[in-house]
Amino acid sequence: MTGEPVRLRRLATADAGFAAALTALLHWDITESSSVNDAAAGIIAQVRADGPAALLALTAQYDGWTAARVEDLVLTGDDFAAAFDGLASEQRDSLQQAHDRVARYHEAQRQGGFEIDDEFGNRLGQRVTPMDRVGVYVPGGQAAYPSTVLMTAVPARVAGVPEIIMTVPTPGGARNPLVLAAAHLAGVTGGYAVGGAQAIAALAFGCGPVPKVDKIVGPGGAFVAAAKRQVYGQVGIDAIAGPSEILIIADDSADPRWLALDLFSQAEHDAAAQAVLVTADPAVADAVLAQIQVLLPQQPRAELIRRSLTDRGAVIVCADLAEAIEIANRVAPEHLQLAVREPRSWLPALRHAGAIFLGVYSAEVMGDYVAGPSHVLPTFGTARFSSPLGVYDFEKRSSVIELTASGADVLGRLSATIADGEGLHAHAAAARARIAGYDQNQEP
Amino acid sequence: MTGEPVRLRRLATADAGFAAALTALLHWDITESSSVNDAAAGIIAQVRADGPAALLALTAQYDGWTAARVEDLVLTGDDFAAAFDGLASEQRDSLQQAHDRVARYHEAQRQGGFEIDDEFGNRLGQRVTPMDRVGVYVPGGQAAYPSTVLMTAVPARVAGVPEIIMTVPTPGGARNPLVLAAAHLAGVTGGYAVGGAQAIAALAFGCGPVPKVDKIVGPGGAFVAAAKRQVYGQVGIDAIAGPSEILIIADDSADPRWLALDLFSQAEHDAAAQAVLVTADPAVADAVLAQIQVLLPQQPRAELIRRSLTDRGAVIVCADLAEAIEIANRVAPEHLQLAVREPRSWLPALRHAGAIFLGVYSAEVMGDYVAGPSHVLPTFGTARFSSPLGVYDFEKRSSVIELTASGADVLGRLSATIADGEGLHAHAAAARARIAGYDQNQEP
Repeated sequence: MTGEPVRLRRLATADAGFAAALTALLHWDITESSSVNDAAAGIIAQVRADGPAALLALTAQYDGWTAARVEDLVLTGDDFAAAFDGLASEQRDSLQQAHDRVARYHEAQRQGGFEIDDEFGNRLGQRVTPMDRVGVYVPGGQAAYPSTVLMTAVPARVAGVPEIIMTVPTPGGARNPLVLAAAHLAGVTGGYAVGGAQAIAALAFGCGPVPKVDKIVGPGGAFVAAAKRQVYGQVGIDAIAGPSEILIIADDSADPRWLALDLFSQAEHDAAAQAVLVTADPAVADAVLAQIQVLLPQQPRAELIRRSLTDRGAVIVCADLAEAIEIANRVAPEHLQLAVREPRSWLPALRHAGAIFLGVYSAEVMGDYVAGPSHVLPTFGTARFSSPLGVYDFEKRSSVIELTASGADVLGRLSATIADGEGLHAHAAAARARIAGYDQNQEP
Repeated sequence: MTGEPVRLRRLATADAGFAAALTALLHWDITESSSVNDAAAGIIAQVRADGPAALLALTAQYDGWTAARVEDLVLTGDDFAAAFDGLASEQRDSLQQAHDRVARYHEAQRQGGFEIDDEFGNRLGQRVTPMDRVGVYVPGGQAAYPSTVLMTAVPARVAGVPEIIMTVPTPGGARNPLVLAAAHLAGVTGGYAVGGAQAIAALAFGCGPVPKVDKIVGPGGAFVAAAKRQVYGQVGIDAIAGPSEILIIADDSADPRWLALDLFSQAEHDAAAQAVLVTADPAVADAVLAQIQVLLPQQPRAELIRRSLTDRGAVIVCADLAEAIEIANRVAPEHLQLAVREPRSWLPALRHAGAIFLGVYSAEVMGDYVAGPSHVLPTFGTARFSSPLGVYDFEKRSSVIELTASGADVLGRLSATIADGEGLHAHAAAARARIAGYDQNQEP
């Protein structure tokens, strides 16, 4: 198969049936299969019922190694520091610089509260405070993701969260030193070598040494996604992640070779990952397709890339860039590269995208690792209503209401009238009690 | 029963077993029963399979009236305006003033984006944009809640959402004029006389005249909560609401009669609602309990209040105010009244609460209707990780990454090193392609 050309779906907006073809291309069932849901529910029930013994049993079952005691699952700050010290200097420096850039970007996301006074001297405000303890789920099945540690834990630390707990599967019991080193840099305060739905259950309810957290963030596979949905409400969650995707809008200012590699870098994640090129220039489409054929055989993960591009990829030829932007708004992609001249001029027309990469130098891979914003982004159209992971995910707000006697007099009258309209008599009575000179013996 | 005293649970922090008693008091199973979940799933499936016919059938079943055509479920801006014009002037003025105050408060919540430049001329930013279309669920079973229309739709309008769709059940086919009038004030752009899980399903997937929305907000009962959990991911949701609750911390500066009415105004919502008084002064506890006995018989909803206070309420006597604040942090209440002297001095020690009411004039009822902040608040401990409904619930962010040639040279090297460490070869290749003078023929 390796020698065969990749057969990439080619669509044109001028075709009859384009809208339907685009809908079919984008189709992704975000609701997990009932077998996955049932399995996740079973794992959660097992962890709640059996406690630490369940973590040992499930780690043996899913990660293929047997810990003698639950304490063997514990990862400490000393483990993180030792891993960092043990790295080759190039890796250590790269992680350090990535960390520093991510931290600097997220400092700009910190939010303040506010206070406003009204004409009666009432003071109304909003406080912003960090959560007490959060859990960071770091995937670690097919690959190890130190970058995900930085992209989840650093925003939590910048928000001021005092306890940041990491869980990561360790297939075969192998702890990845890059992941531990990234935890050291990010300020993770403790961790557990536990993955899958069992990690989510332990973080949501507490289990042996694993403390209950307030919120769980981070990407994961189908079991993790199903478990996060099921524990939502018990704890906060960031999102239910689908496969990763990219939409690249390109003109002839972009090197087709670069674009082919950008598509590959999305496709190599997962067979379900989606890489789509949109261009108003058929020659660009042809050139990128040609580069895909040339460059694919050199890729170690060529078969995965081939499958993803064949099953889920596409090249879309459209009339002009304005139409390309409308396609982007329809797709609401996780990653959007605008590999065009004057990319910033298109920003005002863009409504929905997780991360927007402007210009040919702004490859998605730079955002994955070092640009600064978190690479945990809303997938598969959820950018219509959700945001990149950020400092705001680890902060919560409280409303503050402080009324004066004269303010309560005015607001008490208004409140009582509305409460009467809603038929809530105790509400009305509590409001009237604050009206100046109100004779409470008139009640009811 | 009416004449019997209310037997309110009385706890003291000095008691052995207080921590366990508090945990038992606060217990609430946020995960819906499987029968409710299954029923909600069945309704969602029915709406998806049968479309508008399902809305008619389910409205007949649950709301007790039969619409001839699905168009009869439609509520228009003209309906809203006519209802507003038809109100008695006192009600119209009260709703108008409530609206104006809610709008003014939420204007202060609007968020801006930012841009920062790094030392290589790379520009990193964040855009904030409103959602396209949101759905507001307004409950309407036991009572009608025009205030909920204001408290959900106004933040959406302030965020700049162009389409705001309201759904509200109309038991027996009766449309509540206050609800419609509030929709007029709030700028709701369209509505449907549909409630329950069927409304959530229609908003999540689109159904006949009901368009698919990006996010669904607003409180509801168990079916609505279960349905929201199930469609989460397909659309955004604000939260999965539990019953309402209040924690009042009081000293002897507060009128016990006011405090009794404040507890009633929480308890009258629902038998599962929770009203708790915490005081360091046993005389305050005694005085409030005495007022409860005196005032309860005057309350039209006395039996509901009695049940809520008996089943879920409590008076807690603690050592001092510092301990009371620690109890508040443990509870993370939806509503927290600090009916004490110098209430603002306790703010720094408070970590978790949905809305904080400072001082004896700041009754929760004022926040329910007119103070300004939304009354849609995190319930039952979820203030540990979530926030009042606000403008931010209707905005989403996009990261913006714009690299220069020289910036991409630096970041490309760093990214390639990390990608190599993660074993993602196409990522490394896409990064290296941007390194200045990189000989691509060296690849792989």
